[in-house]
Amino acid sequence: MRILLIGAHGTLGQAVAAELGQRHEIITAGRNSGTLRVNLADMASVEALYDAAGPLDAVVSAAGNVHFAPLADFRPEHYRVGLDDKLMGQVNLVLAGQRRLNDGGSFTLTGGVLADEPIVAGSGASMVNAALEGFARAAAIELPRGLRINVVSPGVLVESMPVYAPFFRGFEPVPAARAALAFSKSVEGAHSGQVYRVK
Amino acid sequence: MRILLIGAHGTLGQAVAAELGQRHEIITAGRNSGTLRVNLADMASVEALYDAAGPLDAVVSAAGNVHFAPLADFRPEHYRVGLDDKLMGQVNLVLAGQRRLNDGGSFTLTGGVLADEPIVAGSGASMVNAALEGFARAAAIELPRGLRINVVSPGVLVESMPVYAPFFRGFEPVPAARAALAFSKSVEGAHSGQVYRVK
Ligand SMILES: NC(=O)c1ccc[n+]([C@@H]2O[C@H](COP(=O)([O-])OP(=O)(O)OC[C@H]3O[C@@H](n4cnc5c(N)ncnc54)[C@H](OP(=O)(O)O)[C@@H]3O)[C@@H](O)[C@H]2O)c1
Ligand SMILES: NC(=O)c1ccc[n+]([C@@H]2O[C@H](COP(=O)([O-])OP(=O)(O)OC[C@H]3O[C@@H](n4cnc5c(N)ncnc54)[C@H](OP(=O)(O)O)[C@@H]3O)[C@@H](O)[C@H]2O)c1
Repeated sequence: MRILLIGAHGTLGQAVAAELGQRHEIITAGRNSGTLRVNLADMASVEALYDAAGPLDAVVSAAGNVHFAPLADFRPEHYRVGLDDKLMGQVNLVLAGQRRLNDGGSFTLTGGVLADEPIVAGSGASMVNAALEGFARAAAIELPRGLRINVVSPGVLVESMPVYAPFFRGFEPVPAARAALAFSKSVEGAHSGQVYRVK
Repeated sequence: MRILLIGAHGTLGQAVAAELGQRHEIITAGRNSGTLRVNLADMASVEALYDAAGPLDAVVSAAGNVHFAPLADFRPEHYRVGLDDKLMGQVNLVLAGQRRLNDGGSFTLTGGVLADEPIVAGSGASMVNAALEGFARAAAIELPRGLRINVVSPGVLVESMPVYAPFFRGFEPVPAARAALAFSKSVEGAHSGQVYRVK
Protein backbone atom coordinates (compact mmCIF):
# COMPACT_ATOMS: atom_id res chain seq x y z
CA MET A 1 0.00 0.00 0.00
CA ARG A 2 0.90 3.67 -0.40
CA ILE A 3 0.38 5.27 3.01
CA LEU A 4 0.49 8.96 3.92
CA LEU A 5 1.62 9.34 7.55
CA ILE A 6 1.19 12.75 9.17
CA GLY A 7 3.28 13.30 12.29
CA ALA A 8 5.74 10.67 11.13
CA HIS A 9 8.64 12.15 13.09
CA GLY A 10 6.78 12.43 16.40
CA THR A 11 7.06 10.06 19.33
CA LEU A 12 4.09 7.97 18.21
CA GLY A 13 4.57 8.54 14.49
CA GLN A 14 8.11 7.12 14.43
CA ALA A 15 6.82 3.84 15.85
CA VAL A 16 3.95 3.76 13.35
CA ALA A 17 6.40 4.38 10.51
CA ALA A 18 8.61 1.54 11.76
CA GLU A 19 5.65 -0.88 11.95
CA LEU A 20 3.93 -0.04 8.66
CA GLY A 21 7.19 0.67 6.84
CA GLN A 22 8.11 -3.02 7.02
CA ARG A 23 5.45 -3.87 4.45
CA HIS A 24 4.32 -0.60 2.81
CA GLU A 25 5.48 2.58 1.12
CA ILE A 26 5.27 5.43 3.65
CA ILE A 27 5.05 9.08 2.61
CA THR A 28 5.94 11.14 5.66
CA ALA A 29 4.43 14.54 6.49
CA GLY A 30 4.54 17.04 9.35
CA ARG A 31 4.48 20.72 10.14
CA ASN A 32 8.27 21.10 10.17
CA SER A 33 9.43 17.57 9.39
CA GLY A 34 8.80 14.83 6.82
CA THR A 35 8.89 14.68 3.04
CA LEU A 36 5.70 16.76 2.76
CA ARG A 37 4.79 19.76 4.92
CA VAL A 38 1.27 20.51 6.14
CA ASN A 39 -0.64 22.38 8.81
CA LEU A 40 -3.63 20.11 9.41
CA ALA A 41 -5.60 22.95 10.99
CA ASP A 42 -5.66 24.73 7.61
CA MET A 43 -7.92 23.04 5.02
CA ALA A 44 -6.09 24.68 2.09
CA SER A 45 -2.85 23.18 3.39
CA VAL A 46 -4.51 19.75 3.67
CA GLU A 47 -5.78 19.97 0.08
CA ALA A 48 -2.26 20.91 -1.05
CA LEU A 49 -0.87 17.94 0.88
CA TYR A 50 -3.15 15.56 -1.04
CA ASP A 51 -2.19 17.21 -4.34
CA ALA A 52 1.47 16.58 -3.52
CA ALA A 53 1.03 13.06 -2.16
CA GLY A 54 -0.49 11.42 -5.24
CA PRO A 55 -2.63 8.23 -5.11
CA LEU A 56 -3.07 6.81 -1.60
CA ASP A 57 -4.42 3.60 -0.07
CA ALA A 58 -4.33 4.84 3.51
CA VAL A 59 -3.98 8.04 5.50
CA VAL A 60 -2.65 7.75 9.02
CA SER A 61 -2.49 10.68 11.41
CA ALA A 62 -0.31 10.61 14.52
CA ALA A 63 -0.54 14.38 14.96
CA GLY A 64 -2.49 17.01 16.80
CA ASN A 65 -2.05 19.55 19.59
CA VAL A 66 -4.25 20.31 22.58
CA HIS A 67 -3.96 22.82 25.41
CA PHE A 68 -3.50 21.60 28.99
CA ALA A 69 -4.55 23.76 31.94
CA PRO A 70 -6.51 23.49 35.18
CA LEU A 71 -10.25 23.80 34.59
CA ALA A 72 -10.25 26.98 36.67
CA ASP A 73 -7.86 28.62 34.18
CA PHE A 74 -9.39 27.27 30.96
CA ARG A 75 -10.88 29.88 28.63
CA PRO A 76 -12.86 29.21 25.44
CA GLU A 77 -9.82 30.04 23.28
CA HIS A 78 -7.80 27.34 25.07
CA TYR A 79 -10.32 24.67 24.06
CA ARG A 80 -10.15 26.16 20.57
CA VAL A 81 -6.50 25.00 20.27
CA GLY A 82 -7.46 21.33 20.45
CA LEU A 83 -10.71 21.77 18.52
CA ASP A 84 -8.91 23.49 15.63
CA ASP A 85 -5.76 21.38 15.61
CA LYS A 86 -6.19 17.82 16.92
CA LEU A 87 -9.93 17.54 16.16
CA MET A 88 -10.63 19.57 13.02
CA GLY A 89 -7.09 19.02 11.72
CA GLN A 90 -7.72 15.28 11.58
CA VAL A 91 -11.32 15.78 10.39
CA ASN A 92 -9.96 17.93 7.54
CA LEU A 93 -7.92 14.91 6.38
CA VAL A 94 -11.17 12.94 6.08
CA LEU A 95 -13.26 15.68 4.46
CA ALA A 96 -10.66 16.29 1.76
CA GLY A 97 -9.58 12.66 1.53
CA GLN A 98 -13.02 11.10 1.03
CA ARG A 99 -12.88 12.20 -2.60
CA ARG A 100 -9.23 11.29 -3.11
CA LEU A 101 -8.28 7.99 -1.50
CA ASN A 102 -8.20 4.88 -3.66
CA ASP A 103 -11.31 2.66 -3.40
CA GLY A 104 -11.24 0.60 -0.21
CA GLY A 105 -8.73 2.95 1.42
CA SER A 106 -8.67 3.88 5.09
CA PHE A 107 -8.26 6.76 7.51
CA THR A 108 -6.69 6.10 10.90
CA LEU A 109 -6.79 8.97 13.38
CA THR A 110 -5.24 9.33 16.82
CA GLY A 111 -7.27 10.01 19.96
CA GLY A 112 -6.09 9.04 23.42
CA VAL A 113 -6.85 7.51 26.79
CA LEU A 114 -7.99 10.83 28.27
CA ALA A 115 -11.28 10.34 26.43
CA ASP A 116 -12.17 7.71 29.05
CA GLU A 117 -9.84 8.38 31.95
CA PRO A 118 -9.47 12.08 32.72
CA ILE A 119 -6.51 13.69 34.45
CA VAL A 120 -6.29 17.07 36.15
CA ALA A 121 -5.68 19.81 33.55
CA GLY A 122 -6.75 17.50 30.72
CA SER A 123 -10.33 18.61 30.00
CA GLY A 124 -9.36 19.92 26.55
CA ALA A 125 -7.81 16.57 25.60
CA SER A 126 -10.75 14.58 27.01
CA MET A 127 -13.16 16.70 24.96
CA VAL A 128 -11.21 16.40 21.72
CA ASN A 129 -10.36 12.70 22.02
CA ALA A 130 -14.00 11.82 22.71
CA ALA A 131 -15.11 14.05 19.81
CA LEU A 132 -12.78 12.16 17.45
CA GLU A 133 -14.36 8.86 18.52
CA GLY A 134 -17.89 10.18 17.91
CA PHE A 135 -16.89 11.61 14.56
CA ALA A 136 -15.25 8.37 13.40
CA ARG A 137 -18.24 6.23 14.38
CA ALA A 138 -20.47 8.56 12.33
CA ALA A 139 -18.17 9.05 9.33
CA ALA A 140 -17.78 5.26 9.06
CA ILE A 141 -21.42 4.83 7.97
CA GLU A 142 -21.19 7.52 5.28
CA LEU A 143 -17.81 7.10 3.63
CA PRO A 144 -18.13 6.11 -0.05
CA ARG A 145 -16.37 3.48 -2.18
CA GLY A 146 -15.53 1.10 0.66
CA LEU A 147 -13.44 3.70 2.48
CA ARG A 148 -12.94 2.97 6.20
CA ILE A 149 -12.13 5.03 9.29
CA ASN A 150 -10.90 4.08 12.76
CA VAL A 151 -9.42 5.83 15.77
CA VAL A 152 -6.46 4.56 17.78
CA SER A 153 -6.67 5.62 21.42
CA PRO A 154 -3.28 4.98 23.03
CA GLY A 155 -2.48 5.16 26.70
CA VAL A 156 0.38 7.39 27.74
CA LEU A 157 3.52 6.25 25.90
CA VAL A 158 6.59 4.85 27.65
CA GLU A 159 8.67 7.17 25.49
CA SER A 160 6.75 10.22 26.79
CA MET A 161 7.01 9.37 30.49
CA PRO A 162 10.18 11.41 31.11
CA VAL A 163 7.99 14.49 30.51
CA TYR A 164 4.42 13.27 31.21
CA ALA A 165 4.91 11.06 34.29
CA PRO A 166 3.84 13.67 36.88
CA PHE A 167 0.49 14.07 35.11
CA PHE A 168 -0.14 10.33 34.58
CA ARG A 169 0.62 8.74 37.97
CA GLY A 170 -0.78 5.23 38.10
CA PHE A 171 -1.32 4.94 34.36
CA GLU A 172 0.46 1.91 32.90
CA PRO A 173 2.59 3.34 30.07
CA VAL A 174 2.33 1.74 26.63
CA PRO A 175 5.42 1.23 24.44
CA ALA A 176 4.93 3.21 21.23
CA ALA A 177 5.67 0.01 19.29
CA ARG A 178 2.61 -1.62 20.94
CA ALA A 179 0.40 1.36 20.10
CA ALA A 180 1.70 1.13 16.53
CA LEU A 181 0.20 -2.37 16.20
CA ALA A 182 -3.28 -0.86 16.45
CA PHE A 183 -2.50 1.34 13.44
CA SER A 184 -1.54 -1.80 11.54
CA LYS A 185 -4.83 -3.43 12.64
CA SER A 186 -6.74 -0.45 11.29
CA VAL A 187 -4.83 -0.04 8.01
CA GLU A 188 -4.32 -3.72 7.18
CA GLY A 189 -7.59 -5.01 8.65
CA ALA A 190 -11.16 -4.52 7.48
CA HIS A 191 -12.99 -2.85 10.38
CA SER A 192 -14.54 0.59 10.24
CA GLY A 193 -15.96 2.90 12.91
CA GLN A 194 -13.81 1.25 15.59
CA VAL A 195 -11.87 2.74 18.47
CA TYR A 196 -8.76 0.67 19.23
CA ARG A 197 -7.87 1.32 22.86
CA VAL A 198 -4.25 0.39 23.57
CA LYS A 199 -3.76 0.16 27.31
CA MET B 1 -33.27 24.78 44.90
CA ARG B 2 -32.84 27.76 42.60
CA ILE B 3 -32.29 26.35 39.11
CA LEU B 4 -31.31 28.21 35.94
CA LEU B 5 -32.73 26.38 32.90
CA ILE B 6 -31.45 27.40 29.47
CA GLY B 7 -33.64 26.33 26.57
CA ALA B 8 -36.65 26.19 28.88
CA HIS B 9 -39.13 26.78 26.07
CA GLY B 10 -37.74 24.13 23.72
CA THR B 11 -39.17 20.66 23.16
CA LEU B 12 -36.92 19.06 25.77
CA GLY B 13 -36.68 22.12 28.02
CA GLN B 14 -40.44 22.37 28.56
CA ALA B 15 -40.49 18.82 29.92
CA VAL B 16 -37.50 19.52 32.16
CA ALA B 17 -39.21 22.66 33.49
CA ALA B 18 -42.38 20.66 34.20
CA GLU B 19 -40.42 17.96 36.09
CA LEU B 20 -38.09 20.18 38.15
CA GLY B 21 -40.68 22.95 38.56
CA GLN B 22 -42.76 20.69 40.80
CA ARG B 23 -40.18 21.00 43.57
CA HIS B 24 -37.85 23.91 42.71
CA GLU B 25 -37.68 27.52 41.63
CA ILE B 26 -36.90 27.63 37.90
CA ILE B 27 -35.38 30.68 36.21
CA THR B 28 -35.94 30.26 32.48
CA ALA B 29 -33.54 31.44 29.77
CA GLY B 30 -33.21 31.19 26.01
CA ARG B 31 -32.06 33.07 22.96
CA ASN B 32 -35.48 34.54 22.17
CA SER B 33 -37.61 33.11 24.98
CA GLY B 34 -37.57 32.84 28.77
CA THR B 35 -37.20 35.34 31.60
CA LEU B 36 -33.51 35.86 30.82
CA ARG B 37 -31.97 36.09 27.34
CA VAL B 38 -28.60 34.61 26.41
CA ASN B 39 -26.55 33.42 23.48
CA LEU B 40 -24.56 30.53 24.97
CA ALA B 41 -22.01 30.69 22.16
CA ASP B 42 -20.93 34.14 23.42
CA MET B 43 -19.02 34.05 26.72
CA ALA B 44 -19.81 37.71 27.51
CA SER B 45 -23.50 36.90 27.14
CA VAL B 46 -23.10 33.90 29.48
CA GLU B 47 -21.37 36.06 32.11
CA ALA B 48 -24.21 38.61 31.83
CA LEU B 49 -26.73 35.77 32.25
CA TYR B 50 -25.11 34.76 35.55
CA ASP B 51 -25.04 38.39 36.70
CA ALA B 52 -28.78 38.62 36.06
CA ALA B 53 -29.68 35.22 37.52
CA GLY B 54 -28.38 35.73 41.05
CA PRO B 55 -27.45 32.84 43.39
CA LEU B 56 -27.95 29.37 41.87
CA ASP B 57 -27.92 25.78 43.10
CA ALA B 58 -28.08 24.21 39.66
CA VAL B 59 -27.64 25.09 36.00
CA VAL B 60 -29.44 22.94 33.48
CA SER B 61 -28.96 23.31 29.74
CA ALA B 62 -31.44 21.89 27.24
CA ALA B 63 -30.05 24.01 24.43
CA GLY B 64 -27.63 23.86 21.55
CA ASN B 65 -27.57 23.78 17.76
CA VAL B 66 -25.68 21.53 15.36
CA HIS B 67 -25.50 21.39 11.58
CA PHE B 68 -26.80 18.31 9.75
CA ALA B 69 -25.50 17.41 6.28
CA PRO B 70 -24.17 14.40 4.38
CA LEU B 71 -20.50 13.80 5.08
CA ALA B 72 -19.75 14.49 1.41
CA ASP B 73 -21.12 18.04 1.82
CA PHE B 74 -19.70 18.82 5.27
CA ARG B 75 -17.15 21.64 5.38
CA PRO B 76 -15.09 22.71 8.42
CA GLU B 77 -17.41 25.71 9.00
CA HIS B 78 -20.40 23.35 9.26
CA TYR B 79 -18.76 21.47 12.15
CA ARG B 80 -17.98 24.87 13.64
CA VAL B 81 -21.73 25.49 14.17
CA GLY B 82 -22.06 22.62 16.64
CA LEU B 83 -18.61 23.17 18.17
CA ASP B 84 -19.35 26.85 18.86
CA ASP B 85 -22.99 26.49 19.88
CA LYS B 86 -23.91 23.11 21.40
CA LEU B 87 -20.40 22.22 22.64
CA MET B 88 -18.67 25.47 23.63
CA GLY B 89 -21.99 27.13 24.49
CA GLN B 90 -22.60 24.56 27.19
CA VAL B 91 -18.91 24.50 28.20
CA ASN B 92 -19.11 28.30 28.63
CA LEU B 93 -21.83 27.75 31.23
CA VAL B 94 -19.40 25.60 33.22
CA LEU B 95 -16.34 27.83 32.81
CA ALA B 96 -18.22 30.90 34.02
CA GLY B 97 -20.38 29.02 36.51
CA GLN B 98 -17.60 27.19 38.37
CA ARG B 99 -16.87 30.42 40.24
CA ARG B 100 -20.53 31.36 40.74
CA LEU B 101 -22.70 28.39 41.69
CA ASN B 102 -23.50 27.82 45.33
CA ASP B 103 -21.34 25.17 47.05
CA GLY B 104 -22.50 21.67 46.12
CA GLY B 105 -24.30 22.93 43.02
CA SER B 106 -24.55 21.07 39.74
CA PHE B 107 -24.31 21.49 35.98
CA THR B 108 -26.44 19.26 33.77
CA LEU B 109 -25.74 19.45 30.04
CA THR B 110 -27.54 17.87 27.09
CA GLY B 111 -25.85 15.53 24.64
CA GLY B 112 -27.74 12.94 22.61
CA VAL B 113 -27.94 9.40 21.31
CA LEU B 114 -25.98 10.23 18.14
CA ALA B 115 -22.83 10.08 20.24
CA ASP B 116 -23.20 6.27 20.25
CA GLU B 117 -25.55 5.50 17.37
CA PRO B 118 -24.79 7.55 14.27
CA ILE B 119 -27.27 8.42 11.53
CA VAL B 120 -26.59 9.57 7.99
CA ALA B 121 -25.93 13.35 7.93
CA GLY B 122 -25.31 13.39 11.69
CA SER B 123 -21.50 13.44 11.94
CA GLY B 124 -21.54 16.96 13.44
CA ALA B 125 -23.95 15.89 16.17
CA SER B 126 -22.03 12.67 16.88
CA MET B 127 -18.81 14.67 17.24
CA VAL B 128 -20.31 17.29 19.55
CA ASN B 129 -22.34 14.92 21.73
CA ALA B 130 -19.31 12.69 22.29
CA ALA B 131 -17.17 15.77 23.04
CA LEU B 132 -19.65 16.87 25.72
CA GLU B 133 -19.37 13.45 27.38
CA GLY B 134 -15.57 13.58 27.38
CA PHE B 135 -15.59 17.13 28.73
CA ALA B 136 -18.03 16.31 31.54
CA ARG B 137 -16.05 13.25 32.68
CA ALA B 138 -12.94 15.46 32.88
CA ALA B 139 -14.53 18.56 34.42
CA ALA B 140 -16.10 16.36 37.12
CA ILE B 141 -12.70 15.63 38.69
CA GLU B 142 -11.67 19.29 38.79
CA LEU B 143 -14.76 21.24 39.83
CA PRO B 144 -14.28 22.96 43.21
CA ARG B 145 -16.52 23.25 46.29
CA GLY B 146 -18.46 20.01 45.73
CA LEU B 147 -19.80 21.18 42.38
CA ARG B 148 -20.98 18.35 40.12
CA ILE B 149 -21.49 17.89 36.38
CA ASN B 150 -23.40 15.31 34.34
CA VAL B 151 -24.62 14.90 30.78
CA VAL B 152 -28.08 13.67 29.78
CA SER B 153 -28.03 11.84 26.45
CA PRO B 154 -31.62 11.43 25.27
CA GLY B 155 -32.80 9.32 22.40
CA VAL B 156 -34.89 11.04 19.74
CA LEU B 157 -37.95 12.53 21.43
CA VAL B 158 -41.52 11.42 20.72
CA GLU B 159 -42.42 15.10 20.42
CA SER B 160 -39.81 15.62 17.69
CA MET B 161 -40.81 12.64 15.54
CA PRO B 162 -43.19 14.61 13.29
CA VAL B 163 -40.07 16.33 11.93
CA TYR B 164 -37.22 13.90 12.70
CA ALA B 165 -38.80 10.51 11.92
CA PRO B 166 -37.30 10.13 8.41
CA PHE B 167 -33.79 10.50 9.86
CA PHE B 168 -34.35 8.19 12.86
CA ARG B 169 -36.02 5.11 11.39
CA GLY B 170 -35.88 2.22 13.84
CA PHE B 171 -34.98 4.39 16.83
CA GLU B 172 -37.43 3.95 19.71
CA PRO B 173 -38.58 7.49 20.51
CA VAL B 174 -38.40 8.68 24.11
CA PRO B 175 -41.17 10.82 25.64
CA ALA B 176 -39.64 14.16 26.69
CA ALA B 177 -41.11 13.58 30.17
CA ARG B 178 -39.01 10.40 30.49
CA ALA B 179 -35.86 12.22 29.36
CA ALA B 180 -36.68 14.90 31.95
CA LEU B 181 -36.36 12.33 34.74
CA ALA B 182 -32.64 12.02 34.00
CA PHE B 183 -32.26 15.77 34.58
CA SER B 184 -33.91 15.29 37.95
CA LYS B 185 -31.53 12.39 38.71
CA SER B 186 -28.58 14.66 37.92
CA VAL B 187 -29.81 17.77 39.77
CA GLU B 188 -31.35 16.08 42.78
CA GLY B 189 -28.91 13.15 43.01
CA ALA B 190 -25.25 13.12 44.02
CA HIS B 191 -23.37 11.66 41.04
CA SER B 192 -20.79 13.52 39.00
CA GLY B 193 -19.09 12.80 35.69
CA GLN B 194 -21.98 10.57 34.58
CA VAL B 195 -23.69 10.24 31.23
CA TYR B 196 -27.37 9.38 31.67
CA ARG B 197 -28.50 7.63 28.49
CA VAL B 198 -32.27 7.72 28.10
CA LYS B 199 -33.30 5.20 25.47
N1 LIG C 1 2.74 10.83 23.60
C1 LIG C 1 1.77 10.20 24.27
O1 LIG C 1 1.97 9.66 25.38
C2 LIG C 1 0.42 10.11 23.65
C3 LIG C 1 -0.55 9.27 24.25
C4 LIG C 1 -1.83 9.21 23.69
C5 LIG C 1 -2.12 9.97 22.56
N2 LIG C 1 -1.16 10.77 22.01
C6 LIG C 1 -1.51 11.54 20.82
O2 LIG C 1 -0.71 11.08 19.76
C7 LIG C 1 -0.47 12.19 18.84
C8 LIG C 1 1.03 12.32 18.64
O3 LIG C 1 1.62 12.52 19.94
P1 LIG C 1 3.21 12.55 20.08
O4 LIG C 1 3.50 12.46 21.55
O5 LIG C 1 3.82 11.59 19.15
O6 LIG C 1 3.50 14.06 19.61
P2 LIG C 1 4.87 14.68 19.04
O7 LIG C 1 6.04 13.87 19.41
O8 LIG C 1 4.81 16.13 19.41
O9 LIG C 1 4.69 14.56 17.45
C9 LIG C 1 3.64 15.20 16.81
C10 LIG C 1 3.86 15.09 15.31
O10 LIG C 1 2.72 15.64 14.65
C11 LIG C 1 3.10 16.72 13.83
N3 LIG C 1 2.06 17.75 13.95
C12 LIG C 1 1.57 18.30 15.07
N4 LIG C 1 0.62 19.21 14.79
C13 LIG C 1 0.49 19.22 13.45
C14 LIG C 1 -0.31 19.94 12.54
N5 LIG C 1 -1.21 20.85 12.98
N6 LIG C 1 -0.17 19.71 11.23
C15 LIG C 1 0.71 18.80 10.78
N7 LIG C 1 1.52 18.08 11.60
C16 LIG C 1 1.41 18.29 12.91
C17 LIG C 1 4.45 17.18 14.34
O11 LIG C 1 5.17 17.74 13.27
P3 LIG C 1 6.46 18.69 13.53
O12 LIG C 1 7.27 18.03 14.59
O13 LIG C 1 7.10 18.72 12.20
O14 LIG C 1 5.90 20.02 13.98
C18 LIG C 1 5.06 15.87 14.82
O15 LIG C 1 5.62 15.16 13.73
C19 LIG C 1 -1.11 13.42 19.49
O16 LIG C 1 -2.40 13.57 18.95
C20 LIG C 1 -1.23 13.02 20.94
O17 LIG C 1 -2.29 13.68 21.60
C21 LIG C 1 0.09 10.84 22.52
N1 LIG D 1 -35.44 16.87 20.11
C1 LIG D 1 -34.83 15.69 20.18
O1 LIG D 1 -35.32 14.66 19.70
C2 LIG D 1 -33.52 15.60 20.87
C3 LIG D 1 -32.96 14.33 21.13
C4 LIG D 1 -31.70 14.25 21.75
C5 LIG D 1 -31.03 15.41 22.08
N2 LIG D 1 -31.60 16.63 21.81
C6 LIG D 1 -30.85 17.84 22.20
O2 LIG D 1 -31.60 18.53 23.17
C7 LIG D 1 -31.36 19.93 23.05
C8 LIG D 1 -32.70 20.64 22.90
O3 LIG D 1 -33.36 20.11 21.77
P1 LIG D 1 -34.84 20.54 21.42
O4 LIG D 1 -35.33 19.61 20.38
O5 LIG D 1 -35.60 20.73 22.68
O6 LIG D 1 -34.55 21.95 20.71
P2 LIG D 1 -35.56 23.21 20.53
O7 LIG D 1 -36.98 22.79 20.65
O8 LIG D 1 -35.10 23.89 19.29
O9 LIG D 1 -35.22 24.12 21.79
C9 LIG D 1 -33.95 24.64 21.96
C10 LIG D 1 -33.99 25.65 23.09
O10 LIG D 1 -32.68 26.08 23.37
C11 LIG D 1 -32.57 27.48 23.17
N3 LIG D 1 -31.28 27.75 22.53
C12 LIG D 1 -30.80 27.19 21.39
N4 LIG D 1 -29.59 27.67 21.11
C13 LIG D 1 -29.29 28.54 22.09
C14 LIG D 1 -28.17 29.38 22.36
N5 LIG D 1 -27.08 29.39 21.56
N6 LIG D 1 -28.20 30.16 23.46
C15 LIG D 1 -29.27 30.13 24.28
N7 LIG D 1 -30.36 29.37 24.08
C16 LIG D 1 -30.36 28.59 22.99
C17 LIG D 1 -33.74 27.89 22.31
O11 LIG D 1 -34.08 29.22 22.59
P3 LIG D 1 -35.02 30.08 21.60
O12 LIG D 1 -36.16 29.18 21.18
O13 LIG D 1 -35.45 31.20 22.47
O14 LIG D 1 -34.15 30.45 20.46
C18 LIG D 1 -34.80 26.89 22.77
O15 LIG D 1 -35.41 27.33 23.97
C19 LIG D 1 -30.44 20.10 21.84
O16 LIG D 1 -29.11 20.16 22.31
C20 LIG D 1 -30.65 18.82 21.07
O17 LIG D 1 -29.54 18.47 20.28
C21 LIG D 1 -32.81 16.74 21.22
